[in-house]
Amino acid sequence: MAAPNKRKIMNDPVYGFIDIPSGLIYEIIENSYFQRLRRIKQLGLTYLVYPGAYHTRFQHAIGAMHLMSTVINIIRSKGHVITEKEENAAMLAILLHDIGHGPFSHALEFTIVKNVTHEDLSLLFMDKLNKKYKGKLDLAIKIFKNEYHKKFLHQLVSGQLDVDRLDYLRRDSFFSGVSEGVIGSDRIIKMLDIVNDELVVESKGIYSIEKFLIARRLMYWQVYLHKTVLSAEQLLVKTLLRAKELSEKGEMLFATPALQYFLSNDVCADDFKNDKKVLGDHTLLDLYANLDDYDIMSAIKVWVNHPDKVLSTLSSNMINRNLFKIVIQNEPINKEVLSAKKKEFKEKMSLTDKEIKYFVFTDNITNYAYSANDEKINILMKNNELKDIAEASDMLNISVLSKKVRKYFMCYPKKLD
Amino acid sequence: MAAPNKRKIMNDPVYGFIDIPSGLIYEIIENSYFQRLRRIKQLGLTYLVYPGAYHTRFQHAIGAMHLMSTVINIIRSKGHVITEKEENAAMLAILLHDIGHGPFSHALEFTIVKNVTHEDLSLLFMDKLNKKYKGKLDLAIKIFKNEYHKKFLHQLVSGQLDVDRLDYLRRDSFFSGVSEGVIGSDRIIKMLDIVNDELVVESKGIYSIEKFLIARRLMYWQVYLHKTVLSAEQLLVKTLLRAKELSEKGEMLFATPALQYFLSNDVCADDFKNDKKVLGDHTLLDLYANLDDYDIMSAIKVWVNHPDKVLSTLSSNMINRNLFKIVIQNEPINKEVLSAKKKEFKEKMSLTDKEIKYFVFTDNITNYAYSANDEKINILMKNNELKDIAEASDMLNISVLSKKVRKYFMCYPKKLD
Amino acid sequence: MAAPNKRKIMNDPVYGFIDIPSGLIYEIIENSYFQRLRRIKQLGLTYLVYPGAYHTRFQHAIGAMHLMSTVINIIRSKGHVITEKEENAAMLAILLHDIGHGPFSHALEFTIVKNVTHEDLSLLFMDKLNKKYKGKLDLAIKIFKNEYHKKFLHQLVSGQLDVDRLDYLRRDSFFSGVSEGVIGSDRIIKMLDIVNDELVVESKGIYSIEKFLIARRLMYWQVYLHKTVLSAEQLLVKTLLRAKELSEKGEMLFATPALQYFLSNDVCADDFKNDKKVLGDHTLLDLYANLDDYDIMSAIKVWVNHPDKVLSTLSSNMINRNLFKIVIQNEPINKEVLSAKKKEFKEKMSLTDKEIKYFVFTDNITNYAYSANDEKINILMKNNELKDIAEASDMLNISVLSKKVRKYFMCYPKKLD
Amino acid sequence: MAAPNKRKIMNDPVYGFIDIPSGLIYEIIENSYFQRLRRIKQLGLTYLVYPGAYHTRFQHAIGAMHLMSTVINIIRSKGHVITEKEENAAMLAILLHDIGHGPFSHALEFTIVKNVTHEDLSLLFMDKLNKKYKGKLDLAIKIFKNEYHKKFLHQLVSGQLDVDRLDYLRRDSFFSGVSEGVIGSDRIIKMLDIVNDELVVESKGIYSIEKFLIARRLMYWQVYLHKTVLSAEQLLVKTLLRAKELSEKGEMLFATPALQYFLSNDVCADDFKNDKKVLGDHTLLDLYANLDDYDIMSAIKVWVNHPDKVLSTLSSNMINRNLFKIVIQNEPINKEVLSAKKKEFKEKMSLTDKEIKYFVFTDNITNYAYSANDEKINILMKNNELKDIAEASDMLNISVLSKKVRKYFMCYPKKLD
Repeated sequence: MAAPNKRKIMNDPVYGFIDIPSGLIYEIIENSYFQRLRRIKQLGLTYLVYPGAYHTRFQHAIGAMHLMSTVINIIRSKGHVITEKEENAAMLAILLHDIGHGPFSHALEFTIVKNVTHEDLSLLFMDKLNKKYKGKLDLAIKIFKNEYHKKFLHQLVSGQLDVDRLDYLRRDSFFSGVSEGVIGSDRIIKMLDIVNDELVVESKGIYSIEKFLIARRLMYWQVYLHKTVLSAEQLLVKTLLRAKELSEKGEMLFATPALQYFLSNDVCADDFKNDKKVLGDHTLLDLYANLDDYDIMSAIKVWVNHPDKVLSTLSSNMINRNLFKIVIQNEPINKEVLSAKKKEFKEKMSLTDKEIKYFVFTDNITNYAYSANDEKINILMKNNELKDIAEASDMLNISVLSKKVRKYFMCYPKKLD
Repeated sequence: MAAPNKRKIMNDPVYGFIDIPSGLIYEIIENSYFQRLRRIKQLGLTYLVYPGAYHTRFQHAIGAMHLMSTVINIIRSKGHVITEKEENAAMLAILLHDIGHGPFSHALEFTIVKNVTHEDLSLLFMDKLNKKYKGKLDLAIKIFKNEYHKKFLHQLVSGQLDVDRLDYLRRDSFFSGVSEGVIGSDRIIKMLDIVNDELVVESKGIYSIEKFLIARRLMYWQVYLHKTVLSAEQLLVKTLLRAKELSEKGEMLFATPALQYFLSNDVCADDFKNDKKVLGDHTLLDLYANLDDYDIMSAIKVWVNHPDKVLSTLSSNMINRNLFKIVIQNEPINKEVLSAKKKEFKEKMSLTDKEIKYFVFTDNITNYAYSANDEKINILMKNNELKDIAEASDMLNISVLSKKVRKYFMCYPKKLD
Repeated sequence: MAAPNKRKIMNDPVYGFIDIPSGLIYEIIENSYFQRLRRIKQLGLTYLVYPGAYHTRFQHAIGAMHLMSTVINIIRSKGHVITEKEENAAMLAILLHDIGHGPFSHALEFTIVKNVTHEDLSLLFMDKLNKKYKGKLDLAIKIFKNEYHKKFLHQLVSGQLDVDRLDYLRRDSFFSGVSEGVIGSDRIIKMLDIVNDELVVESKGIYSIEKFLIARRLMYWQVYLHKTVLSAEQLLVKTLLRAKELSEKGEMLFATPALQYFLSNDVCADDFKNDKKVLGDHTLLDLYANLDDYDIMSAIKVWVNHPDKVLSTLSSNMINRNLFKIVIQNEPINKEVLSAKKKEFKEKMSLTDKEIKYFVFTDNITNYAYSANDEKINILMKNNELKDIAEASDMLNISVLSKKVRKYFMCYPKKLD
Repeated sequence: MAAPNKRKIMNDPVYGFIDIPSGLIYEIIENSYFQRLRRIKQLGLTYLVYPGAYHTRFQHAIGAMHLMSTVINIIRSKGHVITEKEENAAMLAILLHDIGHGPFSHALEFTIVKNVTHEDLSLLFMDKLNKKYKGKLDLAIKIFKNEYHKKFLHQLVSGQLDVDRLDYLRRDSFFSGVSEGVIGSDRIIKMLDIVNDELVVESKGIYSIEKFLIARRLMYWQVYLHKTVLSAEQLLVKTLLRAKELSEKGEMLFATPALQYFLSNDVCADDFKNDKKVLGDHTLLDLYANLDDYDIMSAIKVWVNHPDKVLSTLSSNMINRNLFKIVIQNEPINKEVLSAKKKEFKEKMSLTDKEIKYFVFTDNITNYAYSANDEKINILMKNNELKDIAEASDMLNISVLSKKVRKYFMCYPKKLD
């Protein structure tokens, strides 16, 4: 007899319906750690440039889980055995791969918390959940750490052609409205196969892979590293840094207790690992699990009226989208140009030497769309040979794609009131 | 000579590119009142059911402005004169029609602020902007208030077939992934015309209008009034009401200053109109303009740890998506059933008589997809007669659509920990 | 070891990739009877109004087969057993359900061949293929004829909610560009279930079903029975009828041998069943299997220069899209109006009494979107009761949908040269 | 007063609604020369691989006309004057740019008619229409021939970035279902501008252009030069060549009179230019204007039963999709390999030396996605300099794209019955 109402279906604007398996996966999604992802935007401040890009990490994690299940079924249909246990573990691994992300995703990495990557934090969260669920996440964690012999499962979680990328490229282009970033994920997925426990792409999928790499590069320059997005993120970082500076001096800024803790204390990787109690009953990881976009933005809105001029100016600029002017170039910013700008705005804004660095500064960003050193994308040629896409493609310019591009930028205020 | 970089183009996932005219419209969009809409979700808590529906009022207002411009050009192409000044005013009117919305859009209407509709507030904001811009919004306000002789301009801002609805139905179905709500807005727009300064639809557009009404009804029951969305909104309302009760008793809850003011004070329409200073330099309207989704959600996250058991339970349920169970039916909830539920949970949760009303309660909702009393949708028949769609449609059931449907619901806790 | 290249994948603009199972299904698709569907347009002459609607029966049959496979997997996931043999048979049944269609699909039914429906012919083709494949289509034929105990399999081939309709509504709206006809087939399919071997819809699918019925009705009036399409089809019918009249008188018209046979001979159902040889080695069914859109259109192009004025005028009008004017109304055409038109054009065109009926004539069409007498659409209510959608829907107007609508029309020439 | 019903709107699945201007453009579309394009498939036999790719030249021409109008309005919005007369002429030029195409588009170029390109024929058709419309196409023809001083109008008709390509890439990927070919034509169009009467692209459009070139290359290898499509086209060519050989020997094959003329006579460019009467009242160009896909396919269906074994085998293979096996490689086919294949099949099929060339043969194809020699794609850099995309792109591999790729192929029969 059928039990139609037990299945859980989620509507997704990108894929349509997504089946949520019952059992552990369903419970993990219900867990407050995972629900937190509903309050963290996937693309940080990108919505200040692409208003539609307001989507959340929650949607992305569910979408990637859906792709994982699709890929696994396709691989099975080609004659490979993947057990239900392995399937569940792979789905859990991708579901949780980004659980460690902090507010505004990448924008605030290394600002609120230093020297701890979001991957490290993801693993700590997984371990904690694993304790709660009495070892049921063992295999998921093994796959996440690449300690399982079926390497392709890890490659699908984290590799040149993982379901993480397949989902985020499609999803981010969907929500931003940058239709050129759309990738043929359906076709790529149909072309995946396994050779010696490693992920490969059938040779007739070469054009799709080329297109995927080009689309990824396009999304980098057009969306992820868009100059105005970069400028907005720098403003957010500077605002938080100033708040941290003031807090560490002992000033009590308006902030949720969790944010206040991270503003007033420098925490390191070991502090998270020890997971001792830091605020009432809350451990450090719990406290971190309380942080999301709402803590940050609500605090900044209040800081607009703070007496510290640097903080209030930065905050007001952030809230009212009065972003830095930004210059991007292939060479480092000329030191004299920088000095001149600093001098100009120090005077205009009556700032001290210590304060001007929040308003006029330089830094750099890098990007490469395909890394030959990293995991490769292996093409299964018709003669059953394996070739790296860089070799298999008659386009030959993968070398260009895999070249790390470093760009330098300088920010300074746009308008003063 | 061309000046290609002066134009401002926005990417919209729904319509593609949207041209933003320079001048006043551009300045209004840059204004902090309007930028605030970036921080208010169009569909309140709907994202707890449809994770994609996290889009903002900002996107909707820009989208509706775009449709206004499209409609005006189509009407012009049919031989009607609409001046540039009128076009600009209509675009401003639609841009600002929802500027008065508070956090979480409709979900909190009448909770934070009583007896003041968001339309009233929109008008106050427009008046204030009009002062700032020295009367340049006069015509926009006239159109908004339906005091301009070209009535169709008001009808496009607010009527049975306004660009507000045309945009939100399409946008909300796009982001929620409920593809059945998609309306043929392109075709409807092509069919619009003007007769005696009133908006009409060419007769061959009848099927599209029928479909539009059906789609609207479907969106109501499937999205806007979805039982789980309703349940989530009730939880949010009860949480805020409890916070207000405690605040009015004098307790200081964690909240941004703006939210704190509205929790501790009952304000009425006149208070807004007088717009006196209430907090430092801030007038009441300014304070309201500081409120958005972030104030609410960050406060509730902190209230999870509040000593008041009612507030902390409601807050924790809100943050962790532990929503009320909800029963919806066509008849009022039986009083005895309600009493029994109250009794049951009073005991289970050790609550007092005064407290139980936050957890077990009943209320009702109504909806009608087409109101015959309201503005009509006029069809321009081939013989140049005008007919209301209710008459023109051979489907005959517009009477069903225009029947006000009232549904009654009861909420009570799902699981207790 | 995987054998990736054995699977056959087809690209479909509507669903993306479609898997073609190997074995009998693949062979049937390769068969010349089925390949013929590549040369028969799904919507006859609709492309004269909607230029994109040039798609073929081949695509539709493959698409419907794909949906059948999808539905069967969803039903299985709800705990019902459907054997692989049953699945294959159902896929074959839907693949072949329209194999008997003649040129231009419905447009020429009862013109080239009288008193034989395309369903009868489909069955004859299936029987013939069954002989060739030594009984391997037995079960498919049983399902097609509704002689199999799992009635839902037949309902999926031919019922109020069959995969035939689900595919054609979506496909026809896709290609015609009438986006309002798009149905939420994904959601409907997810909601299907089986009770007592009959197809039912879960109660939360009610709105989707309502939308499906409305969309179907819209497609009828906006596309399938569009007045210009109707006018074009009437022109085609009249052209063929004149050609048949001349041929039966013994005139040799230019035509492929197969078309010539059907123009010169009246064939009945029994002639097909006996399937005797009629032209060299060709049986009647073989000859019919030779007919497609190309025979008709190439002949008409030549007839433009035929000495018979009626035939040449009709043909030229057909080729150059000089269609009849058409009047459609709810009541029969007034006899005097018709007589007057006949008189007018008899004179203008110097035609005889016998000839004018090819240019001025009247007829009627009917349509109903939901037939209560027919198979019902059963909704599985939450209390496990079954209700017909006409009862389950609170829209109440299914009665309107199920009312047979008859419209009367009159055609006459538009312009004369 | 408005005249809503005068405008003509066409539904297009790709762009939605397309406005058809009244006047000359409307009359040209109604003309039988243009209506003929409804009977010529845009992609020849591609539908044998991608069943959805059954769309016609008619749709493409209308779509390209729509894009022309869109581009012109965007260019105007950037401050350039384009008169209504110029706009109309450009729309006519693109509408008619392919009017000279014969049956199955490119597949039969140089088979039915030798040494006359379809561009030559398009011009002859335009001249003929120009005579009929008394010089009203003068400017359209000037633009088509690149004799008008506003060179960008010609570039939009025929250049590296013309609306022809912009439409066909998008349309062909839409109908074939090869979604990776989708180009961001909206964005490209928004980026177009004019400098010194030449078409340029704003610098921020660089990524879109790169994507456009990559998509075009992908469409070439995945669709236009797909090996099975190539194989099908070769089969069609060989079938027609055999029919021509037999006809020239005096044999009367079944064919429409128009096709029969071209099978029996070799015609050259001058014959078309002289346009003398060749069949009754029909001139050569008229006769050509009678040819479309229907003449070819209906004839081949009849030839299946022709006594000439070569013709009947080729025809039967064509109709039943029994295509040649095809080998494609980067080097010329080895002569011995070819000889061996010829020998093998001569014996298997009992063919003579003269006959085998219809079944076993070799040839080559070339493609380049961007030609540096040709018209360039000029990017308008921020410093107002113009740079060729090959230089402006930091992807650097335009050199690869512009390299002519030549591939060699050999065909031979797949299965013999």
